[in-house]
Amino acid sequence: MIVVRTSGYLFDHQIRYPVWEASNPKLSDWLARLNLGGVILLGGSAAELLLRTQQLQEWSKTSLFIAADIEEGVGQRFTGATYFPPPMALGEIAKSDLKLAVKYAYKMGEVTAKEALGMGINWILSPVVDVNNNPDNPVINIRSFADSPQVVSELTKAFIEGAKNYPALTTAKHFPGHGDTSSDSHLDLPIISHNNERLENIELVPFQAAIEAKVDSIMTAHLLINAWDKENPATLSQSILTGKLREKLGFDGLIVTDALIMGGVAKLAKSEEIAVKAVEAGADILLMPDDPEMAINSVYNAVKSGRLTVERIDQSLNKIWQAKNKIFNHNNEKLSVYQLSQKEDRDIVKNILKYSIRTSNNLPLKTKQETSKRNLIVVDNLLNADFLERQMPAFIIPNLLDYNLQLVDQNTFSYVLEDDRETLLQIFIRGNPFRGNAGFNETAKGAYHRLLKKSIIKGLIIYGSPYILDWFITEMEPDIPWVFSYGQMAQSQAIACQTLFNLSASELRSMSQNLGDVFI
Amino acid sequence: MIVVRTSGYLFDHQIRYPVWEASNPKLSDWLARLNLGGVILLGGSAAELLLRTQQLQEWSKTSLFIAADIEEGVGQRFTGATYFPPPMALGEIAKSDLKLAVKYAYKMGEVTAKEALGMGINWILSPVVDVNNNPDNPVINIRSFADSPQVVSELTKAFIEGAKNYPALTTAKHFPGHGDTSSDSHLDLPIISHNNERLENIELVPFQAAIEAKVDSIMTAHLLINAWDKENPATLSQSILTGKLREKLGFDGLIVTDALIMGGVAKLAKSEEIAVKAVEAGADILLMPDDPEMAINSVYNAVKSGRLTVERIDQSLNKIWQAKNKIFNHNNEKLSVYQLSQKEDRDIVKNILKYSIRTSNNLPLKTKQETSKRNLIVVDNLLNADFLERQMPAFIIPNLLDYNLQLVDQNTFSYVLEDDRETLLQIFIRGNPFRGNAGFNETAKGAYHRLLKKSIIKGLIIYGSPYILDWFITEMEPDIPWVFSYGQMAQSQAIACQTLFNLSASELRSMSQNLGDVFI
Repeated sequence: MIVVRTSGYLFDHQIRYPVWEASNPKLSDWLARLNLGGVILLGGSAAELLLRTQQLQEWSKTSLFIAADIEEGVGQRFTGATYFPPPMALGEIAKSDLKLAVKYAYKMGEVTAKEALGMGINWILSPVVDVNNNPDNPVINIRSFADSPQVVSELTKAFIEGAKNYPALTTAKHFPGHGDTSSDSHLDLPIISHNNERLENIELVPFQAAIEAKVDSIMTAHLLINAWDKENPATLSQSILTGKLREKLGFDGLIVTDALIMGGVAKLAKSEEIAVKAVEAGADILLMPDDPEMAINSVYNAVKSGRLTVERIDQSLNKIWQAKNKIFNHNNEKLSVYQLSQKEDRDIVKNILKYSIRTSNNLPLKTKQETSKRNLIVVDNLLNADFLERQMPAFIIPNLLDYNLQLVDQNTFSYVLEDDRETLLQIFIRGNPFRGNAGFNETAKGAYHRLLKKSIIKGLIIYGSPYILDWFITEMEPDIPWVFSYGQMAQSQAIACQTLFNLSASELRSMSQNLGDVFI
Repeated sequence: MIVVRTSGYLFDHQIRYPVWEASNPKLSDWLARLNLGGVILLGGSAAELLLRTQQLQEWSKTSLFIAADIEEGVGQRFTGATYFPPPMALGEIAKSDLKLAVKYAYKMGEVTAKEALGMGINWILSPVVDVNNNPDNPVINIRSFADSPQVVSELTKAFIEGAKNYPALTTAKHFPGHGDTSSDSHLDLPIISHNNERLENIELVPFQAAIEAKVDSIMTAHLLINAWDKENPATLSQSILTGKLREKLGFDGLIVTDALIMGGVAKLAKSEEIAVKAVEAGADILLMPDDPEMAINSVYNAVKSGRLTVERIDQSLNKIWQAKNKIFNHNNEKLSVYQLSQKEDRDIVKNILKYSIRTSNNLPLKTKQETSKRNLIVVDNLLNADFLERQMPAFIIPNLLDYNLQLVDQNTFSYVLEDDRETLLQIFIRGNPFRGNAGFNETAKGAYHRLLKKSIIKGLIIYGSPYILDWFITEMEPDIPWVFSYGQMAQSQAIACQTLFNLSASELRSMSQNLGDVFI
């Protein structure tokens, strides 16, 4: 009933967060001795994951769940695999063509499941089915499909059905709905004060849809839902997990907690008590307890003392065996890691990006030849920007047009405001767990105001947050051409820059021979 | 006789330089049809390489040479493996303790060969045996062991002997010596005007040592050696490759050209002619010809026309078969990729860093508690800085002491000069192929002068170039505490920051629980 976190990398010296990520000696000991349910992995490439998952399965007595937070395709977490734009890109498409959005949600589920299994991941911690009806939400944001429960429901069903082409588990999260919060449950416990009717009409709708589509698991949220339980967050609430989810909604799959080390629950009680309370509430799987051995012992003691029944434990074990049976007993062909991220998979990404892009109606940006120009790229944090590789289109395309790169983050942005060159401004900032909207706080807004006043911004591309776009549309002169893309990765940069400047792939290739295959 | 370049990544969409890196369809066609000698790989992790090399060997008719430019350990190019400091760190140790330096050079060769084979690389394009007697050398620089031919010779022999514990090939490069150049043969053809005596007393000495140590191959340099051949660069010179290297020095291993697409030779003639001239000169292997099929055809035609003899070709083929026999017919145990980069391997790195570090004699830097402080990190190019990962000691340690990070490169450095906070300055700049000393040009020196004048620099760490340290020692006030490390990777950052502030690993761990195992 326990899933622990470890690194997707092969070697312990690659572990960056030792408090959260079990080292190899610790992990192999746990797997040999504790009969853990599974692991959740972060970091590494597709190839690393394949070798890593083989190693983990060998270390373990029983076949493991191997889970990952792959909400934007496997490529979001593991390089080399297909990297989809955030789910809200599909919601954008749904605004004009729900059928097309549903088609791509299905494909996204299918490709994600195929690639996950190709490298040994059998439990997809996705889709996010939260309805993002709070633009200030620092943690869900574009990870959600949309702000409408109906659209989220349709896309959720399609994603799950697509994934069902392969024997991997899907997960609807975060029950009963994390979309209307303005604080981050990684850090604190957000409180939801809506009444029962509102929750049933908005937040619960996509979960019902997921259950109808036979989602394999549902992840609980660390949220205090006042209308249902004034004392316990959903993760630890029997009336919510058992009363609402099991009994009222009739979900009979796996209930998995969100990570128990997160601030939203970890601060509430001792970790022994948290483990017991989660099981008591109705959770089948405890994700990332502080100490797995301690969690097992405290659940065992709770059974011995009569606080938990043996039947309650057996009920969870049965569900776990059923889920593992789905994963390990099937006749599907074994997928080869070499077959991941083929052109047809990447074309789906390209199409989602193409149909979800937003632009001003005064394109293209025409660049003056003789002027001194800069390509000012603002990122949230230079040390946490995986999209910043060499040869990325966001640098290459402006560079071919003589824009000089200036790459800054929050710590250096204010210093480059004095530069008076004509500026292409590219912003890579989105809400993110732990960091929230840190890159777009009041100081940053002040800096953008100063830039806008100087009338040097000749073009604007925003990658990630439509809420930041909304701010700019209100604040900037309407004659500035702009492009907005939900994604931040190479394909997204190519499509956005090519759209802004109206440049085809063949025009680009006539300017440089050394361009990869991401250009459209 | 042909070695082509491809990417170490599994997927074509990961190729960043399509002009140089063959895509999978092209490569699999070449390997099935052209009977190529081998491939040279760049990019990827240890795990990726293992899967990639298996794939390449399966695609090929004959067992392939799989080569890589791993001059600073396998980790220099392939993440996860052991990353050694640049060879000149060993030369630094040799200044006070040649025996210790020899011991570590042996270990470095041994670990490099072990790890290369563990992931399927069988040809190590190392050691660099050039004598770096020109501090302005933009391309060799700290890739060389030292500026003394005797020290280079001793360390060369030790490295090769260490590598000989495993069936991988070693390569002494770049014949007849690239250490005294001030231009980069990746871009142009440097000219060496020393007389024969000087070349024999300096440049050739380490090559003789390498031959005595039975190095498997020698790589040619794209250099014009006026004393020996006024017309042809070494790579294309019969009097140098055959006359000097084969006959005079008696080398009977593989002669491999440096990459034939490099500016230093590619500009001289059509690629068909370059291929033939290299074979005519005495090369056994043509590395990265412009087009392998064209290279094969032009050599074939040269044999047909009588310009090259069949015996000349057979001579090279015999050497190739001998080398492949060494690689593929042996009784060594198969190494597991999971066994790479163990603690004992990484301890060698730690020791090399520890014994090669240089410091001022006024350590530690004492930080004032209440002052506003910044950690100003200057890198050559933010897009080409693999050492800039999350949780790197160069940020983490100063951050624990309340230094605020400011991370800049050439494009943003001048803007942060106005900041008057007390500054820890960390510089990550070294000579690099293609880019030379771009990060330390006259503009940059001017900027450092302005910083130094303001007396805000309270501590200095330089990673990489001892020549940049020399400049600072001349220019700055002697009361500024400083540390110099040859490496730039995490281990190097940990040892340098801990030395500057005199902080032990346990002191650091008392300040944060979330620190990886790189701290000393």
